[in-house]
Amino acid sequence: MTQVYNFSAGPAMMPKAVLEQAQKELLNWQGQGTSVMEVSHRGKLFMELIAEADKDFRQLFNIPDNYKILFLQGGARGQFAAIPMNLIGAKGKALYLNSGHWSGMAAKEARNFCEIDELNVTEKDENGVISITRTDFSDITEQYDYVHYCTNETITGVQFKEVPNVGNAVLVADMSSDILASRIDISKFGLIYAGAQKNLGPAGITIVIVREDLIGKARQATPSIWNYETQANADSMINTPPTFAWYLCSLVFKHLLAEGGLDTVEKRNQAKAEKLYQYLDNSTFYRNYIAKPNRSVMNVTFSTDNDELNAKFVAEATACGLQALKGHKVLGGMRASIYNAMPIEGVEALIAFMDKFAKENA
Amino acid sequence: MTQVYNFSAGPAMMPKAVLEQAQKELLNWQGQGTSVMEVSHRGKLFMELIAEADKDFRQLFNIPDNYKILFLQGGARGQFAAIPMNLIGAKGKALYLNSGHWSGMAAKEARNFCEIDELNVTEKDENGVISITRTDFSDITEQYDYVHYCTNETITGVQFKEVPNVGNAVLVADMSSDILASRIDISKFGLIYAGAQKNLGPAGITIVIVREDLIGKARQATPSIWNYETQANADSMINTPPTFAWYLCSLVFKHLLAEGGLDTVEKRNQAKAEKLYQYLDNSTFYRNYIAKPNRSVMNVTFSTDNDELNAKFVAEATACGLQALKGHKVLGGMRASIYNAMPIEGVEALIAFMDKFAKENA
Repeated sequence: MTQVYNFSAGPAMMPKAVLEQAQKELLNWQGQGTSVMEVSHRGKLFMELIAEADKDFRQLFNIPDNYKILFLQGGARGQFAAIPMNLIGAKGKALYLNSGHWSGMAAKEARNFCEIDELNVTEKDENGVISITRTDFSDITEQYDYVHYCTNETITGVQFKEVPNVGNAVLVADMSSDILASRIDISKFGLIYAGAQKNLGPAGITIVIVREDLIGKARQATPSIWNYETQANADSMINTPPTFAWYLCSLVFKHLLAEGGLDTVEKRNQAKAEKLYQYLDNSTFYRNYIAKPNRSVMNVTFSTDNDELNAKFVAEATACGLQALKGHKVLGGMRASIYNAMPIEGVEALIAFMDKFAKENA
Repeated sequence: MTQVYNFSAGPAMMPKAVLEQAQKELLNWQGQGTSVMEVSHRGKLFMELIAEADKDFRQLFNIPDNYKILFLQGGARGQFAAIPMNLIGAKGKALYLNSGHWSGMAAKEARNFCEIDELNVTEKDENGVISITRTDFSDITEQYDYVHYCTNETITGVQFKEVPNVGNAVLVADMSSDILASRIDISKFGLIYAGAQKNLGPAGITIVIVREDLIGKARQATPSIWNYETQANADSMINTPPTFAWYLCSLVFKHLLAEGGLDTVEKRNQAKAEKLYQYLDNSTFYRNYIAKPNRSVMNVTFSTDNDELNAKFVAEATACGLQALKGHKVLGGMRASIYNAMPIEGVEALIAFMDKFAKENA
């Protein structure tokens, strides 16, 4: 069969070694004669698994001791609601930075639970190029319980390369599409959250990294599965957790540590993105519409500026084993999601195809 | 290796044929060269999967056309919060029937979101035997937006054998531990919900069956992932769903249909439970504390009335491949969860062990 590279934006490619291990032990985990998905989450072996997962993730992402790691259900969209429920306090108001679709959706959902101010932080120039216009908000943040932003907008491929300065305010980040893509200074954040289905594991589990002093402030009307205090006190097991997804995340963490941790991962991600953007910049056939300083390392968008040609591109690429390159419906064009699990060979195969297609269709 | 039978209360045993199929195609689903967990939930093949799952589940459980089936995240515990958010209307109040731990937890969570009345519907006699005291509530339900109950209390093993009469009120049922165990008349219910991890699939996905006229009444402060209207309009895909769990549920549905549907399943479940209760009733060594008319077909609790002997039983049973027989911590003793996936041979092996253990320890 043709070598397949899957550029899906999420659910996305998983490390092959992880899937192979999961396959091998799917009916007999730890010699128990049962699947990991059939055992009690409160059993000794599964409790060991989650302790290891906490330790490995903490090491991998260099998470300080004063942060709790929660493994929850409901996706990032669930956290859009849970965050105001848990973090709105004395000031009664939050600031949402809007850098695209997902940060806008987070703001929209938050409005159902609290008062917010929303600030657009991107602009599109006369050539259609999108850039982030502001990263220092320290002069306006005092009045807010927290400031929310999205580190990487998956649809357009706009990424913050530096952590916004919010002064003494609590910074909350949706890192769904670039968590574990590079080393970051966790201490700058009050809370980080991410759906698993891009860099962490399969869809159906959500990681929340929350500074301990922010735990314990949830309003009464907070569903208990999203109450950070309740879940922190219960090892994220106030109810039956998505055990198989948690297990797969634990395998991904071990896999990344074995690869050399985030130094290795970050270098590879940089190399993949540079190669692809360089090709795009040298091309007269394809265009990327994101300002260079804000280009995502994870989601590379491009277009021929011709809808028919774009559709042809996607169809022919799929036939060549280069899957899921169709851009999100709100943007159109193409998108190559090149998360941690995408090898450099996948990017090279994509560029080779792009080049061939450009020559055939220019 | 010893033949293993897993009596876990949930996450619980899955049909072996389902796990074998999942294992076989874990890295290459539908000939795509990718795992089902790596593909977009909005892709053609996955959309076909969910359409099939809806059709199969509808056929299996005989669900009328005026009910929607939602596949959500957050477990039954998430629905404890979502139900009042979606269903509390003009009357402003719900009735919760308390038949044990889980129905009590549902009531407790609901109190954070609405006014409720809670009615205890079990009693324990002088010998410690628990029975359901009432199933007709039609004279008191008019004042409530809905009446909530739990069809099967997993911890004690208390099961309603008939649907409570709530007159014209909307009946809401937590069927987490006995959904698909037998045929029921869906039209008696306004809403049925269940975590998947007992009879439907793996932990991490929750099924809600809701009558269409009850959709569209959610309060503003309802998280969008639990807004029945939003999710019904979006094919349960307002956000990235737990695709792998959904896929496994779809395989379970096909498996049960191939077995002959719920007629076959119900007969087997009855035979398993009768065999085990009959053995218990003939034993002077073990006791079950549930009144005969209310004994669960899914969770059979028993005890030697001696904590040390109970612990010895669990340890020796485990060593013989009879796993996860320890009772829930709130009850103690032993519990054999014999959900749909447990073959009759598992129950026979358990009885043989119980008999041997009784003779050795009487």
